[in-house]
Amino acid sequence: MKYIYLLGSTGSIGMQTLKVLEQHQDEFKLIGCSLGTSDEKNKEILEHFQPEIVALRFEKQYQRYVDLYPKITFVIGDSGLIDVATYPKKGLLINALSGSIGLKPTIEAIKSHKDIALANKETLVMAGDIVMEYVKTYDVELFPIDSEHSALWQTIDHENKNYIKKMVITASGGSFRDLDRESLKDVTVKEALNHPNWSMGAKITIDSATMMNKGLEVIEAHHLFDLDYDQIDTILHKESVVHGLTYFIDGTIKASLSVSDMKIPIAHALFYPKRVHYPKQLELKDLSFLPMDYERFPLLSLAYEVGRKGGLLPTVMNAANEAAVHLFLNEKIKFLDIEDIVFDYVNKFDNVEYPTLDQILTTNQHIQDEINKKYWKR
Amino acid sequence: MKYIYLLGSTGSIGMQTLKVLEQHQDEFKLIGCSLGTSDEKNKEILEHFQPEIVALRFEKQYQRYVDLYPKITFVIGDSGLIDVATYPKKGLLINALSGSIGLKPTIEAIKSHKDIALANKETLVMAGDIVMEYVKTYDVELFPIDSEHSALWQTIDHENKNYIKKMVITASGGSFRDLDRESLKDVTVKEALNHPNWSMGAKITIDSATMMNKGLEVIEAHHLFDLDYDQIDTILHKESVVHGLTYFIDGTIKASLSVSDMKIPIAHALFYPKRVHYPKQLELKDLSFLPMDYERFPLLSLAYEVGRKGGLLPTVMNAANEAAVHLFLNEKIKFLDIEDIVFDYVNKFDNVEYPTLDQILTTNQHIQDEINKKYWKR
Repeated sequence: MKYIYLLGSTGSIGMQTLKVLEQHQDEFKLIGCSLGTSDEKNKEILEHFQPEIVALRFEKQYQRYVDLYPKITFVIGDSGLIDVATYPKKGLLINALSGSIGLKPTIEAIKSHKDIALANKETLVMAGDIVMEYVKTYDVELFPIDSEHSALWQTIDHENKNYIKKMVITASGGSFRDLDRESLKDVTVKEALNHPNWSMGAKITIDSATMMNKGLEVIEAHHLFDLDYDQIDTILHKESVVHGLTYFIDGTIKASLSVSDMKIPIAHALFYPKRVHYPKQLELKDLSFLPMDYERFPLLSLAYEVGRKGGLLPTVMNAANEAAVHLFLNEKIKFLDIEDIVFDYVNKFDNVEYPTLDQILTTNQHIQDEINKKYWKR
Repeated sequence: MKYIYLLGSTGSIGMQTLKVLEQHQDEFKLIGCSLGTSDEKNKEILEHFQPEIVALRFEKQYQRYVDLYPKITFVIGDSGLIDVATYPKKGLLINALSGSIGLKPTIEAIKSHKDIALANKETLVMAGDIVMEYVKTYDVELFPIDSEHSALWQTIDHENKNYIKKMVITASGGSFRDLDRESLKDVTVKEALNHPNWSMGAKITIDSATMMNKGLEVIEAHHLFDLDYDQIDTILHKESVVHGLTYFIDGTIKASLSVSDMKIPIAHALFYPKRVHYPKQLELKDLSFLPMDYERFPLLSLAYEVGRKGGLLPTVMNAANEAAVHLFLNEKIKFLDIEDIVFDYVNKFDNVEYPTLDQILTTNQHIQDEINKKYWKR
């Protein structure tokens, strides 16, 4: 029986992870998790999985849950996430939190000797150098859950890193891939949330439309696979069938394909090196590939630039984007304002090399607060 | 320094193998080879590589070569191929012979403890069970050089065989892929030899046009990867960029891609598990996939049937096809007669299960002689 911790249980990746766990109840025991705001979802999870420790989002939920489930240890808020991450039973922690809030629990889980399955991009974007150093020091495993990185991981499993020429991450192009930049001016939140291939959370769906998501993935791949930015390419592939390709120095290219279902990379991380049965089979049809259009998607170019410069800049970019997407989802700003805000904050920032974790967390908080203060009340 | 034996040096795969060896002279030493009928090609090979033992095609070549190259041991004909295969220095034997003549030298090389890099499909088609048994008994390596099998091998390297759901071999469709069966009646040899993607020998180019080549590859894959025929699919993919795909039970599909250059699978077999630099890079463009049309290509259906039945039938099918293609190349029969002859011989044959190597070789010879006698003088 493998012990599992799941942060972000009620989000899109979290719910799909629970489905995988449910299908394999004899192999996994959910020891700890974090919940959201929907009582209905929360209760279903608690009653089905009966975890030992549970992080609630808000203090006001506390008494109600303690009364209902006296056997469970409830903890609260950001510090509650850390309590779950550091719970003293070894196991695999799946970090399916959305946004910068995911960073600290990853690090604390590593320090308490847990393996990590990472769906939270921000962990590596903000603090990739620090996190990968901890992974080495504490000798834990770090498995990607992003479909692209899971695919890339599979193309290089057991391969000698020196033989890798480059990796290519595919991009569907997001909700607005058929619109030119002029047409993006007045797109609505509803239109932006309508992703052609994947059913995902709101934040990542917007990030797909701006191509910021691919930018975060490039930075993530840099840390995860220890590659230079020159070795990481992106390509437009609207079918979302091929998720990643690795080019080897000898002319061979390995690609990893699957239907668009996050349960596949989730199961891969949970079961690795085992593989378990998945019911659907991909029917291979025509596949299209187009060179990435970096002018159409300036945030992706920015991500490469920011990734190369490193230091605090990826945190700045990510924080500005996170706040801006939140504002857009709440209809406080327009779609193209997201780019403007991110560029503005990155351009005016005085970079700091080799930041500490505290500097990263403080900078993230500071920028998000500032942007929220400026735009939220409008 | 790795010792190399190369059978079929002057054929298409042979010449490309020599190019790879030439590029890596400090790593390989050509110990033995077999030559063809062109004095010019032969001399170039002998002078450049200075092998120790060389099989000449015909007795009449012997004295001339002995006089010219007194330090080299020359041997002759089919028995000469065996002399090279059994030469008492360990190493890797690359079997790039075309046709059924390749079987016996493979087996003798295995018995003299040489590893095998196999471009000769007939070895496994005719005697896959026997050959794979020898590979086990003598504990040698058997690497595929066919681009499809090399690709498939790469998709399952270090994978647990139990997790393989199926393999898919891609087919370009050959020279006549855009013609319906009615239009095939009067196609010429020259038209048939004009393959859209690959530069290959004449025999395999015709086999590609009839799709017999894919049939031979299916049988080869069955033996090489120890899969049931139900687990081996073929798909039409006219770009010849994806060479093989493996479907795993967990929904993941790994594909192996490269430009259409046999030097890539040759180098892979020569250097495995190392990878060496290849200059060109595949530019990923749109890829098309269509279900295989088994009615359009009846020889492929036949190969599945013959493969499933096993015994002597694959030898019968291969022998009839080999003789028929030879006749077509010499304009003794029409293109569609190839199919008729192969079907005729397979249908009328009384199968023998678990044939001996002698039975296989005798049956092959008998059928080819019979077909040649019947059609050659017309």
